[in-house]
Amino acid sequence: MTSSIIGFKRLLFGRPLPSDRLEHERLNKKTALAVLSSDAISSVAYATEQTLLVLAVLGAAALNYVIPISAVIVGLLVLVAVSYRQTIFAYPAGGGSYTVARDNLGGSPGLIAAAALLTDYILTVSVSISSGVAAITSAYPSLAPHAVTLCIGAIAVLMLVNLRGVRESGIAFSVPTYVFIALMLLLIGTGIVRGLMGHELAPLTSTPHVDAVSAAQHGLRIPAGFAFTYLLLRAFAEGCVAMTGTEAISNGVGAFRKPSSRNAAATLGWMAAILATFFLGTSYLAHHYGVMPGASETVLSQIGRHVLGGGGLYYALQYATFAVLVLAANTAFADFPRLSSILAADGYMPRQFAARGDRLAFSNGIIVLALMAALLVWLFHGDTSALIPLYAIGVFICFTLSQAGMVVHWFKLRDDGWQRRAWLNGIGAAATAAVAVVQVVTKFTAGAWIVTIIIPLIIVMLRTIHRHYERFSKEVAYTGQAPLMFLHHTVIVPVNGISKPTAGALVYATTISEDVRAVYVEVDGASTERLQAEWEAWDIGVPLVVIPSPFRSVLRPIVDYVQGLAERGETDLVTIVVPEIVPRHWWEHLLHNKTALFIRTAFIFRPNVVVTAVPYLVGRARRLRDLAEYDEAIA
Amino acid sequence: MTSSIIGFKRLLFGRPLPSDRLEHERLNKKTALAVLSSDAISSVAYATEQTLLVLAVLGAAALNYVIPISAVIVGLLVLVAVSYRQTIFAYPAGGGSYTVARDNLGGSPGLIAAAALLTDYILTVSVSISSGVAAITSAYPSLAPHAVTLCIGAIAVLMLVNLRGVRESGIAFSVPTYVFIALMLLLIGTGIVRGLMGHELAPLTSTPHVDAVSAAQHGLRIPAGFAFTYLLLRAFAEGCVAMTGTEAISNGVGAFRKPSSRNAAATLGWMAAILATFFLGTSYLAHHYGVMPGASETVLSQIGRHVLGGGGLYYALQYATFAVLVLAANTAFADFPRLSSILAADGYMPRQFAARGDRLAFSNGIIVLALMAALLVWLFHGDTSALIPLYAIGVFICFTLSQAGMVVHWFKLRDDGWQRRAWLNGIGAAATAAVAVVQVVTKFTAGAWIVTIIIPLIIVMLRTIHRHYERFSKEVAYTGQAPLMFLHHTVIVPVNGISKPTAGALVYATTISEDVRAVYVEVDGASTERLQAEWEAWDIGVPLVVIPSPFRSVLRPIVDYVQGLAERGETDLVTIVVPEIVPRHWWEHLLHNKTALFIRTAFIFRPNVVVTAVPYLVGRARRLRDLAEYDEAIA
Repeated sequence: MTSSIIGFKRLLFGRPLPSDRLEHERLNKKTALAVLSSDAISSVAYATEQTLLVLAVLGAAALNYVIPISAVIVGLLVLVAVSYRQTIFAYPAGGGSYTVARDNLGGSPGLIAAAALLTDYILTVSVSISSGVAAITSAYPSLAPHAVTLCIGAIAVLMLVNLRGVRESGIAFSVPTYVFIALMLLLIGTGIVRGLMGHELAPLTSTPHVDAVSAAQHGLRIPAGFAFTYLLLRAFAEGCVAMTGTEAISNGVGAFRKPSSRNAAATLGWMAAILATFFLGTSYLAHHYGVMPGASETVLSQIGRHVLGGGGLYYALQYATFAVLVLAANTAFADFPRLSSILAADGYMPRQFAARGDRLAFSNGIIVLALMAALLVWLFHGDTSALIPLYAIGVFICFTLSQAGMVVHWFKLRDDGWQRRAWLNGIGAAATAAVAVVQVVTKFTAGAWIVTIIIPLIIVMLRTIHRHYERFSKEVAYTGQAPLMFLHHTVIVPVNGISKPTAGALVYATTISEDVRAVYVEVDGASTERLQAEWEAWDIGVPLVVIPSPFRSVLRPIVDYVQGLAERGETDLVTIVVPEIVPRHWWEHLLHNKTALFIRTAFIFRPNVVVTAVPYLVGRARRLRDLAEYDEAIA
Repeated sequence: MTSSIIGFKRLLFGRPLPSDRLEHERLNKKTALAVLSSDAISSVAYATEQTLLVLAVLGAAALNYVIPISAVIVGLLVLVAVSYRQTIFAYPAGGGSYTVARDNLGGSPGLIAAAALLTDYILTVSVSISSGVAAITSAYPSLAPHAVTLCIGAIAVLMLVNLRGVRESGIAFSVPTYVFIALMLLLIGTGIVRGLMGHELAPLTSTPHVDAVSAAQHGLRIPAGFAFTYLLLRAFAEGCVAMTGTEAISNGVGAFRKPSSRNAAATLGWMAAILATFFLGTSYLAHHYGVMPGASETVLSQIGRHVLGGGGLYYALQYATFAVLVLAANTAFADFPRLSSILAADGYMPRQFAARGDRLAFSNGIIVLALMAALLVWLFHGDTSALIPLYAIGVFICFTLSQAGMVVHWFKLRDDGWQRRAWLNGIGAAATAAVAVVQVVTKFTAGAWIVTIIIPLIIVMLRTIHRHYERFSKEVAYTGQAPLMFLHHTVIVPVNGISKPTAGALVYATTISEDVRAVYVEVDGASTERLQAEWEAWDIGVPLVVIPSPFRSVLRPIVDYVQGLAERGETDLVTIVVPEIVPRHWWEHLLHNKTALFIRTAFIFRPNVVVTAVPYLVGRARRLRDLAEYDEAIA
């Protein structure tokens, strides 16, 4: 059985990779653009739609605001990108918001950034996959009832691919991003040209409409006076979701081929340009063609149908949208485990997140991310619009902390031109802080409140873990000299008859100490005499101690006996040697009393008592064959 | 935490009882009638109803057959009771079908009886509880949607009561049986008198009807010719469910106060008389008042409403019916664990079923029975009529095997009057064998097929377990003289730094052998040099072995090293001593690598390697306080 599990693991994940392969797993610029920028680029699939969903409540006239709102967001994007460019050069090893905030602002802001980032990576997966599946169900409405299943299946595939290692996933995923970029350029170009030439358009296949019920569900009400401004802000806040993912490149500088910083900065520039073009283009086309968010079809799908017709190019766009959104989710699969490993190295996450697995990927981080994202998709029924209010808040908290940290960084460094750089990061920090406040206020009742609870909870968790590790490392620190070597060591072997497993345990016991005692717990008196007679005849030089047990417990009398030894000062150290039956098949475990396990549990809290199980292998010959197979498979 | 678990267990089950209390837990006749006869007596709650359900398909005229069919069943009951009276005297220690069949007919018939009995005990619980809850939902129709929940709750309560021990459950349950008997006598007496006097009856509150859809679901079709006879047989087979539970007293002779056989025989006589009266009475009243099975109300509830009116007496009858059916289920809670313990002692069930727990009850048998019965109730939605086709078959297989066994018994014994006794048991065996065939044939498509699969599967399971234990006891039998005492014993301590847990493991290691080696698995080279320097300064006389691990696995290099030692013949026995961190809180386990567990798993298949975990207790002072509480609670 063991060897077949290994074979399956090998098939799924490939052979283990040696540590010195790590450098070869680094990304070139083209691959990095696919792997690390897809999160940002792909947000055109839902950002315009979210803005329109809010504006539609304000009536037809308000839809004109989509263009100026999008322009403001693109301005903000340029500001943030320029800010992050400075971070990339200042932190060539990878300057995630956590690192920058921790190094410059101190522990607490660092932890806020970490908590915000962790939630955001999870939401990146949930939102991108939900939105990707919506692209597919827009093209094939009959698949809509299976949306949640499709989402969870996609997350599972992503998890497996990432467990294989990052470079291969880069290669596997580069092509669809470039196809998406090409198709989006075609869409926007064709759309603008046809729009300017005043061509007649094909009638809509699905009637665009605003679903009032759905709008109300997202916390929207028909406005009056002040509320109008409030809803415009809300529309802006929703559109800001386009900027999510912008920080991925500066987080991942360490994954670039050398020279890392230059390559990363160039990639960041390209990413910002592409994103700005796509977002403005999509908003323009949506406005120009009067597309409105529908319950069953995405805005991008409707634009695609208008501009490209319902044929092959339209389907290609939907597939490419799905693929690029899957890649966006994949960004989080690169970043969440990396951040977890940094946090684990700092003692804020369990140690198991720090180490790379067989295939050089941070396996535990990948698995936890997949599980959390799948849980969210399931809880929110794979509804992108319901997940989005939770999403952008964390991103803007990170933007703010990261850029505020950079301001402090420049003040400390004071190199050539530091003032200009500090100003730039300062303006970025102020702008993104303002947006973060707008995010929380305008989307609070629509779900943002969940994030305001979860982020503090994560911070408490990180702090609790850190406190545990600190106390632990203080407690185990050893300052003494050579350990004490001379002890009186008593070995107890519980027996219930003379058999090979018992004999094995006794051989082991006599090997490790001079003072060995066989202990028999007497539940019924008749068998005691028989055993005593047999024991005397056996004559192995180990005394047999009989302890009565009127309540039929086997454990209690042994615990009392061992305690008695220690209390009377007869010994310094007790080892209980228990034969442990190791059957050939799993179900056979049910047929043997788990005495070894019970004894270990009973003594685990007691100092100076060690429980040792001496395995007795049932059907030893057959087992050794299995073992040879296992060794071959593992080699 | 440990002490609060013990406190809770104490509250639920009471203090442990010493083994010599066993005799005082035995039953007197009045209690035994309540505990062991309720299964048989309570079947009036569903037996007449099942017969009517079939007859109704044949049309109104066929309903007249209910009286003659009931009379035949009562004749059969008397025959079986007289047969079992002989068994009680022949087997004063308890003559269950398994014991009688095994002793007289041999192993295979014994196993068939055992398998049939095990399924039957489980079905006794499922059917009785479902039917009991139907008595309650008949009185309170608004509870009907919660039937399955009520059933599972009742099974859980029964399980807890039985885990406390049998005598207390006898006392707790005697009263309701006698109330049921009194109310049934009142019902039948009043019903017959009012019927004979031709009183006007109150109109029915629920319209009696035969649910044709439900009838079809149970495999019934409107008949023609031969089918008429077939359905009469089916009605008879359904009515035979009244006889289930008759064998409980002869199974449980050992639970009676002495003289066990005389007391048991007297109780059996009373039981048969009461059952015959109730069954005939119910059938007569159902026929006389033209009651038909309804979808939402039981036949007994309808008779109760007619005869007793809808007031207090009617509700008392429903409560008493529920209570006596719970007691019927309780019969199985006495018998299933007892049979399991006999089978375990014979090596056909896991050993864990053989021993009595703290409170002298067979805890494991009780728990397994409750789980299986709850599963069946859940699978069949608590529908009594759906469960009944699975039920009576096993009982009649057991009746047949048990009485056939008794015939062989008398042939062997040949004491005074053995021929008369052999004839009596022989007639009983033939009659019950015929009924068993009728059961399988007429109810096959209605669910009986399930039992014809499950009983053979159980037999295969019993045989497989037996084969395992036989092979195992042959394999472990030890015939050698004193075990070998002189071995070269090498102790390996995996280390990753100098700390208290490591020091503890090293102290232990140096206590058990002269040849101790600390092993360091090198994942990154830089830390190796630092450790080597620290190690030399520490100067404890234990060499530090460094093994490189290019694939970052910690386990693999240790496995290879140990294997190398054995292959080069450097040692006879290897112990790997691993420090095991024992944190204070459960969640802290997630923060420490489970190295001890992984190493144990990796070496469990390898001969001559023992893995010993030396516990390191985090926060030792606090732990020792917990331990004192634990010891106080357990005392």
